[in-house]
Amino acid sequence: MTEFDEAIALSDPGQGGEAPGGELTRTAHLPEGWLIGGAINGGVLMALGVRAMSEALAADGGGADVLAFTAHFLSASQAGPATVTPEVLRVGRTMSTAQASIHQRDEGKGPVERVRMMATFGDLAAFSEPVHRQQPPPVLPPPDQCISASDGPKEMLETIRILSRLDIRLDPATAGFGLGAPSLEGELRGWIRFIDGREPDLLSLPFVVDAFPPVAFDLGAMGWAPTIEFTGHVRALPAPGWLRVRLTTTNVAGGLMEEDCVVWDSTDRVVAQSRQLAGVRMPSA
Amino acid sequence: MTEFDEAIALSDPGQGGEAPGGELTRTAHLPEGWLIGGAINGGVLMALGVRAMSEALAADGGGADVLAFTAHFLSASQAGPATVTPEVLRVGRTMSTAQASIHQRDEGKGPVERVRMMATFGDLAAFSEPVHRQQPPPVLPPPDQCISASDGPKEMLETIRILSRLDIRLDPATAGFGLGAPSLEGELRGWIRFIDGREPDLLSLPFVVDAFPPVAFDLGAMGWAPTIEFTGHVRALPAPGWLRVRLTTTNVAGGLMEEDCVVWDSTDRVVAQSRQLAGVRMPSA
Repeated sequence: MTEFDEAIALSDPGQGGEAPGGELTRTAHLPEGWLIGGAINGGVLMALGVRAMSEALAADGGGADVLAFTAHFLSASQAGPATVTPEVLRVGRTMSTAQASIHQRDEGKGPVERVRMMATFGDLAAFSEPVHRQQPPPVLPPPDQCISASDGPKEMLETIRILSRLDIRLDPATAGFGLGAPSLEGELRGWIRFIDGREPDLLSLPFVVDAFPPVAFDLGAMGWAPTIEFTGHVRALPAPGWLRVRLTTTNVAGGLMEEDCVVWDSTDRVVAQSRQLAGVRMPSA
Repeated sequence: MTEFDEAIALSDPGQGGEAPGGELTRTAHLPEGWLIGGAINGGVLMALGVRAMSEALAADGGGADVLAFTAHFLSASQAGPATVTPEVLRVGRTMSTAQASIHQRDEGKGPVERVRMMATFGDLAAFSEPVHRQQPPPVLPPPDQCISASDGPKEMLETIRILSRLDIRLDPATAGFGLGAPSLEGELRGWIRFIDGREPDLLSLPFVVDAFPPVAFDLGAMGWAPTIEFTGHVRALPAPGWLRVRLTTTNVAGGLMEEDCVVWDSTDRVVAQSRQLAGVRMPSA
């Protein structure tokens, strides 16, 4: 099993017990290798939630490819056990909708909700073609001429544990933050794949859209950028190979910014796009 | 009371009875004047949901200005009575999160869920300043040199009833669809205000981001563009006066498109931005 599939593994429905609403809870184990600072990466949580919702809908006869997903983050997740509780809201002819909650037990307390999600599902093959228009992919140097995130400062790699799970190559034009010289354009571009060779699919896209370093790094804001709300759209099944990612932000005010992400596959197809509202601590002028 | 405030009026908590989860349900009446074709405009529903969540959080001691809201649409809403059931998920020191469901009774059936929402709230004044960067507003001709939506075909005005509640002035450069000559750029720009003079505020922004004609009109796709998922970020309290709106779409494939909206107030401030995933029926080439 690949590292990512291990991170989003779920117990069989019912083994996690019954949630208050009578829905079947599933259990997961969030591995330490997916930490960013002291918290589990939000993309892993979103992939877990999407997976649980998809499987609950499939069991109810609904189309089970994720088309749009939303997460509102309630508290920081820790490494260790978690429960994932999906709830089917509607099974439709072409689209179905579900909700999911992820909880963990805080020491000496009862279950604390980490993230609440909603998502809409369908048969992606029926919603991918034909392509009328799409954003062209950014022109990037090939991966071996980009800056590998694994060449970053040792301190960064020890704090951002997920960087060891990924092969991220940043366009040198947007990698200046690593040398204390961010472009200040509010953009990061580069390549991404799993370090163990796992190919991209519909389960990994909700993770990939949140896997790059924060775009705020390119504005000289090197701190953690906690996600408040995250929404992604999945537009096509990714082909095997490297994915290209572009992150941008244009509205930074009051300690908040939006971060937009577009993901292209190896055939130049837009496979996902997302926007999040995140906290940002801008450096003093 | 203004037309919009009438549309988002809610009964006192508890008068609507108790929802299955024990939360207090409130009742609303969706007026016919806010129909688009056969369905109530989604922005009215989002404003209703945000209002109910905000008031539930305020009663629980949470900051009550909406910062980010998400709606997944489950079925088309009709004019007439509706229930709005908010649920507080978390009350935090700086941010709080809630969920809401809107239901209506379909003829001969029990309650049917129309839309499920989640939103994060806080004290917007603490999250608005300082402005580090933002998108500049589009350069538009003054409102009296733009194309008034109320000059549109009588048939369109009878179908899109909400156009009679609004004063929308489209930039002539993006209003070609009215003459059968869309720009095909995938962009609509213009001014908007309520026809009865109601000024914009935090309650109206979740409506305004979904009030313009669909951006697909500028691609020659003149049909209804049903929203699947909608997320908005509220970034500042709008000043009185006209709002400027820019809608864009860049990824149109498989009968789906994203529609991005940015709203500026009369002081050039970005007050809200949003993205939705919507259905679109492209004309045959």
